[in-house]
This record gives sequence, structure tokens and C-alpha cells, in this order.
Amino acid sequence: MRGPSVTPFHAGEIGTRGAARLRAGRPFIGMHYGQPSAGAPPAAIAAAHRVLDRDPLGYTELVELRERIVAYYAASHGVEVGLERVLLTAGASAGLVAAYAAMFRPGDRVAMLRPGYPAYRNTLAALRLTPVEIDCGPEQGFHPTPAQLAALTPAPQGFVVASPANPTGAMLDARQLGALLETCRTRGIRVISDEIYHGISFGKRAVSALEIDPRAVVINSFSKLYRMPGWRLGWMIVPADWAAQVHAYLINMFLTPATLAQHAALAAMDEREDLERWVRIYERNRTRLIEGLAALGITGIVPPDGAFYLYADIGHLTRDSMQFCLRAVDETGVGLAPGIDFDPVNGQRFVRLSFAVNPQEIEQALAQLAAWLPRYRDAESA
Amino acid sequence: MRGPSVTPFHAGEIGTRGAARLRAGRPFIGMHYGQPSAGAPPAAIAAAHRVLDRDPLGYTELVELRERIVAYYAASHGVEVGLERVLLTAGASAGLVAAYAAMFRPGDRVAMLRPGYPAYRNTLAALRLTPVEIDCGPEQGFHPTPAQLAALTPAPQGFVVASPANPTGAMLDARQLGALLETCRTRGIRVISDEIYHGISFGKRAVSALEIDPRAVVINSFSKLYRMPGWRLGWMIVPADWAAQVHAYLINMFLTPATLAQHAALAAMDEREDLERWVRIYERNRTRLIEGLAALGITGIVPPDGAFYLYADIGHLTRDSMQFCLRAVDETGVGLAPGIDFDPVNGQRFVRLSFAVNPQEIEQALAQLAAWLPRYRDAESA
Repeated sequence: MRGPSVTPFHAGEIGTRGAARLRAGRPFIGMHYGQPSAGAPPAAIAAAHRVLDRDPLGYTELVELRERIVAYYAASHGVEVGLERVLLTAGASAGLVAAYAAMFRPGDRVAMLRPGYPAYRNTLAALRLTPVEIDCGPEQGFHPTPAQLAALTPAPQGFVVASPANPTGAMLDARQLGALLETCRTRGIRVISDEIYHGISFGKRAVSALEIDPRAVVINSFSKLYRMPGWRLGWMIVPADWAAQVHAYLINMFLTPATLAQHAALAAMDEREDLERWVRIYERNRTRLIEGLAALGITGIVPPDGAFYLYADIGHLTRDSMQFCLRAVDETGVGLAPGIDFDPVNGQRFVRLSFAVNPQEIEQALAQLAAWLPRYRDAESA
Repeated sequence: MRGPSVTPFHAGEIGTRGAARLRAGRPFIGMHYGQPSAGAPPAAIAAAHRVLDRDPLGYTELVELRERIVAYYAASHGVEVGLERVLLTAGASAGLVAAYAAMFRPGDRVAMLRPGYPAYRNTLAALRLTPVEIDCGPEQGFHPTPAQLAALTPAPQGFVVASPANPTGAMLDARQLGALLETCRTRGIRVISDEIYHGISFGKRAVSALEIDPRAVVINSFSKLYRMPGWRLGWMIVPADWAAQVHAYLINMFLTPATLAQHAALAAMDEREDLERWVRIYERNRTRLIEGLAALGITGIVPPDGAFYLYADIGHLTRDSMQFCLRAVDETGVGLAPGIDFDPVNGQRFVRLSFAVNPQEIEQALAQLAAWLPRYRDAESA
């Protein structure tokens, strides 16, 4: 193979072991992936049943869904988005691939946060673009600063920003995001704003890059707030004069996204009460998990503003986050994501826990970890 | 945007106009896309209903489906494929993108058939690979020859072969495919075999490249034989020593494919009688459409061995295949794909018609065209 070597998601191995446990009838609590353990809103499931029975499910781009997304930006962000700017994608992933391929050239440098979502970096590498990591440690609340972006030499061609961020849940307010985008504007850096966790926040409002820069490329998805990860549906907002070309990339590379998912998503977007109910469950899980981990000696977690992750420093327990996660899943049935997925420099001392699970799963996971951590510590220090 | 300019599917505009007609309550017969107008086998729909009600539809790669695909290769092709070599993809498209990115470097030359599926060429271009077209006209039965492959200088790094081919339905027998793959072996050309139309043929058996070259990369999908285009599910078979790396590309670029589709596809694979019944319908449609078009003066069509397309020379009617297709959809409600999607050199004198429709739709389309063609001819000669 002549393509660049690409790193897998290490959390994938945790998922594989978890799935094997479930097939063998053994318990597994999946906090390793970024996926809500509750399924889609009931109204979305009901819509899917109806469509399954009456539609042959050919290649489709549902105009009604694109119109609904236009209405969402008007209502939630006070932003007018022309229908032609709304492109449906096979999850945020396909949107990111198309954006990278359409916007950049091999060798172009694209800045991203470290820690950050691994596919930003790995997909850049697969497409022969160069990831430029901005070190956003806990000491700066996992936020990038305009000074860091201004200091990159030469100026990168692109900047991928995420608020709420994965794996930290850190959010940028309008002033912070505005300052970053202003730096991008003055330096000629193209902005991709991954807004996949919008709608899942605990007090702060998520600001869309479109409120600040109408030419930002926005990536979003039905996988998180709408609880539809395995349905594989997302969307992009692109500048009007780019829309035809980005759509040509999408059609050639992916054809249209899953048809049934488009119908179900249209129903899901109106289920604000159901969606909000689960966000409140995540909020209680967040509090309980921070408190429960603290009781186990895992302290100093920066409380996430949004998304549904804790990014926990376990440097006092291990400097091999993958080994820690492998032992955790094998010995307790609790699935965690190793920090090395998100941070190739400091990730060995971190794990990411998803709290988009049922409250009972939080309690079970804490109980399992409480029983196991002393054994792990003893074995490691032996 | 700094990415290469990419051509859209011109048939997409036909689909857009067709969808607008349907929304306005006007008739439309969709023969423009490569999608069966019948939905998935009833057993697949039933499986989807069951799974919708009991599974939260998280990120999944269904081992049972991968095992079923292993069994398919043993039963249908007499080929043993290790489970680790079977990768699930979001349609054949995502498999093709991952294969291109993992196997080649920017500037690498990849040979393909002309006429051929437009995304081969356009996705190569999007990834900065260089398509090298092998002219396979009707005079050679739309087949590439080993001599043509041997004459490419310098040797391309890759060769994308499809049998049955799109848009022509031409098939290569074991001897023909063997000779092409032997040329690839001696010249060090990597083979990607797109086998998406396997199972849809009219007398000849489709030969898998894996029967000849166990290191061929095979792309396949549930979109055609299984009638599940909008479900977005396909698979790849890759050499065992490449599997982990290609999987890393897939996960980073796309995550996992649609979960519900995986369950439905597993059910569909056992519905051989239902699948075969529709292939026989396509076979009758093929005969009727060739005969009906001949009566309208569209003659000399090379009868397709497989797939569900006629690639018809309409050079006596037009040298602007897109204008012909636009007028056809606007004035008759019959959706056709312009030859320029498949052949940038000679495509202006061809259209592609999909006959994966109901027999009544074939009759309606022929009646519409019979009433319209004289008007079109008169207008053009006026």
C-alpha cells in the first residue's frame, strides 16, 4: 500500500472486547465510544417504521430535512442560511472528508486542538494534509487561544475548531470563539467548525461559528443530541458559492446519505422535550461521575461545559492509558477510551469516559471501578 | 477552495427535476439512477422493523454479517476468505474512497474503463490521483483488452475493473478477466474489482477477481442485487495483511456503516428466491426495452450480459446528451442518464437507461418516448 500509515481508534479494540463480552453473556458498560446508549427519540423510531413500509428507500436527499435545518439555524442561532448551503452527509465524518478534500491541497497545514477528536488528525493524514496541533491542556481549560493560533508559522491553511470539544467538553463563548475567528480572518485561515455536540451543554449556550463568520464551514450530525449514531446522518453548512462544488465531492465520494435516517431525523428535530430530557440526565450523570471518581482518588477533572465526556487525568495510576483501558474492560466490563486516541503527547495519562448512559450504568461502573482500582494499583506497584 | 474541481453527476439534475415533478403530483419514471425501483426483500424490511424496536442503533460492525459474507464467497465463488479480510463499508462508494486513499499516492495513475462509472474518475480526481481511461467502445463489446492494459506507458499503479460494467452491462468471462489480471500481475498493477452488479446477469456467471487473484481488492454492495441503495451498505475484501490498515482508514474517515442496514442485509442475503425473481423481471424488461427502443429507431444496442442498464447510441438524434435528457424529463417525465456522465469523449451521443423498474414502467416509458421522439426530432431539425 502506498497510502500514509493511519492510526486506528484504540477505543475500537475496547469496543471489540466489549461486544465479545456481550455475545458471551457477560456484562459490559460502554463508556468508550461517543454514543448515547439510549436510542433515537420514539417519534423518530415511529417515523422510520412508517417509511420502511411505504418507501423503496432509493437514493434521496430530503428537501424537507434541509428546510428543517434552515429553520433550526434561524430559531437557535438567529442566522439565515440559504437552502442551497445545507448539504446532507453520511455522518459528520463524511462531511469532514469532503471538506478536507475540497478545501485543501496535499501538504496544506490544518490546525486542530490537542487533545482532540482522533479522526481530525488521522483523516488529515490519510488525505496527505498536515495536522498542526495546538496544545490545549487542562491548565488553560482545554481552550485554544488566539495567541496560539497567531503564533503558528507559517499560517496554516485551515483551522478545525470544536465547541463543545471532544474529549474535554470545553466550550468557547462568543467572545473566545470570535477572537479565534478574527485571527483566522486576518491570517487567511479557513475555518471548519465541528458543532456536533451543540444542544448538549450544562448552562452555557453553544455559539455557532455562523453567528460570527458566515463563511465558516460548519459540520454537524444527528449522532449526539439526536441519539442516532448508527443511523449515519449529518449535515454541512458551506458558503453559497462553494455549495455546488462540495456537493459534487459528496455525491461522487459517497452518493446520498441513508434515506431512512433522513426521515427519522426530520421527526427527531421536533422532539425538543425528549432531547432535553436526556441532556438533563447527562447533566446529573456528569455530577455523579465527577463525585464518584473523586471518591476513588481520580480528582481534578475540569468539569465539562458540554458534550458528554469526562477527560480524566489518571497519571497517578498509569503512564499507559491503553493498558489501563484494556485491563479495565477485561477485568471489570467497563469500557473506557484511552487518552492516546486524543493526544499523542500527553494522552498516556488520561482516559475519556462517556456519561451518555443510563444513571444505573454510572452507578454500576463506579461500583466496578471501586472494587477493581485497588487491585490494579497493587498489581502495578508490585 | 484549493481542492481540484470535481464534476457532479449530471444525472443528479435529472433526479432533482424528477423529484420536483413528483412533489408537484406529476408523473415521473426514474430510469436515470442505478437503483432498483422495488424496495428491499420483505424479509429485510421485517428484520429492520424488529431491530428498530429493540436496538439503540449505536456504532456497529456486525460480525454475523461479515461471517455471512465469508459463506457467500465459499458458496458462490468457491473462494475461502478469512473473516478478517471482510470489511463493511457505507456503500461501495466509501470502500472505493478508502481503497484509493490507502493504496495510492497523489499523482499515481489508475486505469479504468471508458465508458465507466463516473465516480471512479471523479473520486480519483478529488484525491489527486490520475484517471487513465481505456477506450472500450461498442466495437469491442465494451470490453478492455490485455493489449490495451499492456500498452499504457508507464504502467499505471492501479486498475479498476467492473464486470458486469456500468453503464454497459458488459461482462468478462474467466478467460478474459484472467488475461487482464495476468497483465496486471506482470506489470505490478494493483487491482480493484468492483463487483457491485454480481448476481444480476442474464445467462453468464459473474467471475470474482478473487477466483483468479487472491490479492485483488474487491468492492461490493447491497445496493443492486439486494435492492437496498438508500440503506448505504457495502463491503470490501482486502488482502489479510492490508486489512488492519484499510480498516483504520474506514473508521477514521467514516466510522461504522449504518447499523439497521447491517441487520436488514443479513436477512436479505438469505432471500435467494426473492432476489432471483427480480433478476428475471429485469431480464424480461431488458428484452422488451431493446425491442421497444428499436421500434423507435434506437437500434444497435449491445445487449447487456448483466447489471440493469442499456447504453444506447442516440447519435442520430443528438450530439448533446444532457440537453436530450433534460428535455426528456421535462417533456415526458422519463428520467434518463446522459452519456457524458460515463464517457467524456463519446458520451454526447449516448444515454443510459436503467431497467430495474417495474414492467409497467417500461411500457409507460416507451409510450411516452414514442409520442415525444418525433416532436423532439422535428424541433431539433427545425
